[in-house]
Amino acid sequence: MAPILPTIEFPADLKSKTIEQLQQLAAEIRSFIIDVVSVNGGHLGASLGVVELTIALHYVFDTPIDKLVWDVGHQAYVHKILTGRKEQFASNRQKNGLSGFPKISESTYDAFGVGHSSTSISAALGMAMGSKLKGNAHTQHIAVIGDASIASGMAFEALNHAGVANANLIVVLNDNAIGIDPSVGALKSYLMQVKQGENPKVNNMIKSLNFKYVGPIDGHDLKALIHELQRLKSKTGPQFLHIITTKGKGLKQAEENQVVYHAPGKFDKITGDLLENKAQKRTKYQDVFGLTLLELAQQNANIFAITPAMPTGSSLKHMMDVFPERAIDVGIAEQHAVTLAAGISLSGFTVFCAIYSTFLQRAYDQLIHDVALQNIPVVFCIDRAGLVGEDGATHQGVFDIAYLQAIPNMKILAPKDAVELRQVLYNLQNNRSQPVAVRYPRGYATIQEWNVPFETIDFTTIQSIRKGKRAAVLSTGTIIENVLEALNFDDDYFSVYHFLQIKPLNKKAILDLANTYEVLLTIEEGVVKGGFGSVVNQIVSESKTNTQVINLGVPDAFIEHATVHEQWQQCGLDAASIQQILKKISNV
Amino acid sequence: MAPILPTIEFPADLKSKTIEQLQQLAAEIRSFIIDVVSVNGGHLGASLGVVELTIALHYVFDTPIDKLVWDVGHQAYVHKILTGRKEQFASNRQKNGLSGFPKISESTYDAFGVGHSSTSISAALGMAMGSKLKGNAHTQHIAVIGDASIASGMAFEALNHAGVANANLIVVLNDNAIGIDPSVGALKSYLMQVKQGENPKVNNMIKSLNFKYVGPIDGHDLKALIHELQRLKSKTGPQFLHIITTKGKGLKQAEENQVVYHAPGKFDKITGDLLENKAQKRTKYQDVFGLTLLELAQQNANIFAITPAMPTGSSLKHMMDVFPERAIDVGIAEQHAVTLAAGISLSGFTVFCAIYSTFLQRAYDQLIHDVALQNIPVVFCIDRAGLVGEDGATHQGVFDIAYLQAIPNMKILAPKDAVELRQVLYNLQNNRSQPVAVRYPRGYATIQEWNVPFETIDFTTIQSIRKGKRAAVLSTGTIIENVLEALNFDDDYFSVYHFLQIKPLNKKAILDLANTYEVLLTIEEGVVKGGFGSVVNQIVSESKTNTQVINLGVPDAFIEHATVHEQWQQCGLDAASIQQILKKISNV
Repeated sequence: MAPILPTIEFPADLKSKTIEQLQQLAAEIRSFIIDVVSVNGGHLGASLGVVELTIALHYVFDTPIDKLVWDVGHQAYVHKILTGRKEQFASNRQKNGLSGFPKISESTYDAFGVGHSSTSISAALGMAMGSKLKGNAHTQHIAVIGDASIASGMAFEALNHAGVANANLIVVLNDNAIGIDPSVGALKSYLMQVKQGENPKVNNMIKSLNFKYVGPIDGHDLKALIHELQRLKSKTGPQFLHIITTKGKGLKQAEENQVVYHAPGKFDKITGDLLENKAQKRTKYQDVFGLTLLELAQQNANIFAITPAMPTGSSLKHMMDVFPERAIDVGIAEQHAVTLAAGISLSGFTVFCAIYSTFLQRAYDQLIHDVALQNIPVVFCIDRAGLVGEDGATHQGVFDIAYLQAIPNMKILAPKDAVELRQVLYNLQNNRSQPVAVRYPRGYATIQEWNVPFETIDFTTIQSIRKGKRAAVLSTGTIIENVLEALNFDDDYFSVYHFLQIKPLNKKAILDLANTYEVLLTIEEGVVKGGFGSVVNQIVSESKTNTQVINLGVPDAFIEHATVHEQWQQCGLDAASIQQILKKISNV
Repeated sequence: MAPILPTIEFPADLKSKTIEQLQQLAAEIRSFIIDVVSVNGGHLGASLGVVELTIALHYVFDTPIDKLVWDVGHQAYVHKILTGRKEQFASNRQKNGLSGFPKISESTYDAFGVGHSSTSISAALGMAMGSKLKGNAHTQHIAVIGDASIASGMAFEALNHAGVANANLIVVLNDNAIGIDPSVGALKSYLMQVKQGENPKVNNMIKSLNFKYVGPIDGHDLKALIHELQRLKSKTGPQFLHIITTKGKGLKQAEENQVVYHAPGKFDKITGDLLENKAQKRTKYQDVFGLTLLELAQQNANIFAITPAMPTGSSLKHMMDVFPERAIDVGIAEQHAVTLAAGISLSGFTVFCAIYSTFLQRAYDQLIHDVALQNIPVVFCIDRAGLVGEDGATHQGVFDIAYLQAIPNMKILAPKDAVELRQVLYNLQNNRSQPVAVRYPRGYATIQEWNVPFETIDFTTIQSIRKGKRAAVLSTGTIIENVLEALNFDDDYFSVYHFLQIKPLNKKAILDLANTYEVLLTIEEGVVKGGFGSVVNQIVSESKTNTQVINLGVPDAFIEHATVHEQWQQCGLDAASIQQILKKISNV
């Protein structure tokens, strides 16, 4: 048979194909994705699971006039390949290449930019209401959402509204019983019962919300999918199609080990075997967190830990495996996770809540209103703080210092390395004084010997790392590694200080530094506006000291996908850029 | 009959009473609340609706060992009266008096502090999980939540978790079909069908989430309530009791006009008639917003508007009444509201999203990820920005400048008065360039003649309000009224500038000011950390200008309930405090 994929550039090219040809196309797309992802890395399992669905959607609907919104967007590789981006697919997640997620600026077929979960129904409903008002009675608006994502509160809010909005919205529930980690919660159990045709007493929840419900049907059966979608295309009002798929479909190892093959790194495209990662001899910050917490929990029955849907990513799974009663995954439910943490803390436990910096944005009000206002001593372990690399703009962990800084009672810590992260966790294990946020980056720690004996440390000490005479670099967090690398030239101009504690700052100590040096250069891996540096400014500005204060950090712009090193360069935070600034200062 | 209320100090005093005595007590408590609220103001309807429920809960359960969490907390007056605070109830919502909401620091009977909606199930579940781990197998944990609040996403996240957590949690759904405004959405329709015993096809949604469900029962029937609660007390695992109540129960006008009598201000305790409010000759900022938007919408078919559950409070009801297709209430669903706004905006509408500053915290991620990252030109009308008075710490609108400042692409505006608010709305009616936030305070505008002809204005102009020689006050928003009042002394020391546009700031213009004056004093009604002033500092600090910059604003602490004027005093933002600082600067 002649290959079909080379004949497909845009969805229009699908329309003339037979079901058999589309089935052949599905197999070719799977091979194409496996070929590219096995070499480049990226998200694998989710896209393999929706090959038939994506073909069927673009075959049936008139995209981009009909609007197709992918929830999260991990699964949109097939969509990209079918909408004019096949040739560029090898540039996926690379600087100036395709984004790993749908992105309006990349294609008119990307109706809505995504990355975070559970936004698709709201966005598609908005477009549907807009179409209705504009008199486009036949335009359709489709949200494709997984069973892990639909359990998040925002999706429920959207369903609750859509049920009474009478706009042309089709929600396709892609039910594969897994997000990045296996789905959890009562809704998951309910969907499992629906799939198995069990428990007739449990009637249809989706119909209760006034949707027309169809399903569950086999999401790998192209013929059935096309049939149902064609039927739904002509309907008006809120429709719900429940399909069952297998994440990783078509690659045996990916089907069998869905968590690992969510984003497996490089692998052998024939056997599926993972290829060795050179960096793997070092330990991830996540494992420093997860293994240290497990070690503490083995001695301290008062430790409780929560992750919203990231047991593997955050490495909380180490503790969850050993202490399932005291370390739990609540699913994609950041808001609930934070307030639940407050409730458990009030029972006397030291609660460690592990959340990615970018996802903690979802629980900002709960941080303020439920935790900080009541001064409840939850410890937030803010994972993937700073620049995150290939996931790009949607996932940058650069706002947390600024948004936490504004909250009274909140202590903010940023360890300079893996050992300090470990010691901070040890020192917080019986914290009863106030909420604390500990931020640390994505990826591998530089220090290999992180597993040192525990010791008591003082968070407030401003650590003198290097002594110079004229100017001082005030650094917080792991970005200090770039500062020290930048200072490889022979020089006694610059002192370097590390601030483990970003908030509160010791005003007198800052003024002493201002009075000692001609220039203070603050540096942080977070937005400059409202960051660590801004508080240093505030202290110096209201004094009558003439010290110049320069703030380095992430500029006021969204930083797109690239390697972390390229993103540092873009922000002027790599060693070379820092050195340039230091040399400029010291030559004046 | 001898009055019962004088014999009740704490819940223990209820235990010996007969049902008839408790019924009499209910009537006495209603009179007591009406007596106090009619004179002092405060929330009325919600507490009148839960008199029997509150008595029954404290009669049946062993509070404070059993944990009772009130969602939102509007309805907790009866609870306060029964838990040792009857004598202080007249100080409700006043400085150093009782808080209008449950508050841990106020009483051990207040298991969790509230104010914002939909947190109760998460908090109570956390306590229930904590109790279970501590081996307290018989402790109960009760969340009382309304039908408007349970429709919010966070509550769904908590139900989804609770259904599989196997902890002692009782959720009491207080279903009165209204929040502050009438409830909306598909869940509301579903609950209505349940109440009316209709539509047998629609089976029980709550059971789908693995709760044991009982109801609906009459929430004013003390005997039935006590019977059911006693039965539930001995159960383990997740239980759900659905009760039907009438908001405002026992005061005819409050039952008939539930929106007005949510918080009616002063009224005649016999007739229920509202007493004239002296301030009412002036117009609320909310009405300046709502009436101006209606006026614009009458000319401009491209305007769409959204409120999450605050049609009356935000005054969006003016437009909703006339253009129900283009102005909608989505219920307590801030996350959905913001992303829905993005979707509608992509269809070509100018979307005005009216949200209280404190509630926009709930949609912080959606602001960043769905709106700003895609540079979608939604206009956020940020109501109740600044200090809010009697609602207190849970409701302060003081974080928005800081949390918005950190977001790229976001324009932030703070009009100095009602006329400028009106002109800003006019000038944004066809905004297609970027997201914009417009912040304005709670309460009455000073200007009575706000209804002026529309004109084109330049947001970026730094407005010179008063000319002086040595120092400059850089003010943003309506707090400028206090600045000008403070400058009533004869003096040519101080210039005053108004910044309508907080972000982006014109760096060169700020440096010109820094080069012109010896001192810059920034002032804003928001937290100092990360606020408007912090960006001024940033610009001045990195220059080599020696100008001193002093930032005034809300300090790094939660500001409790009091009048707005008292809160200004506490923050040093009232005219007298500002004058003191100005005099100190000008004497140096």
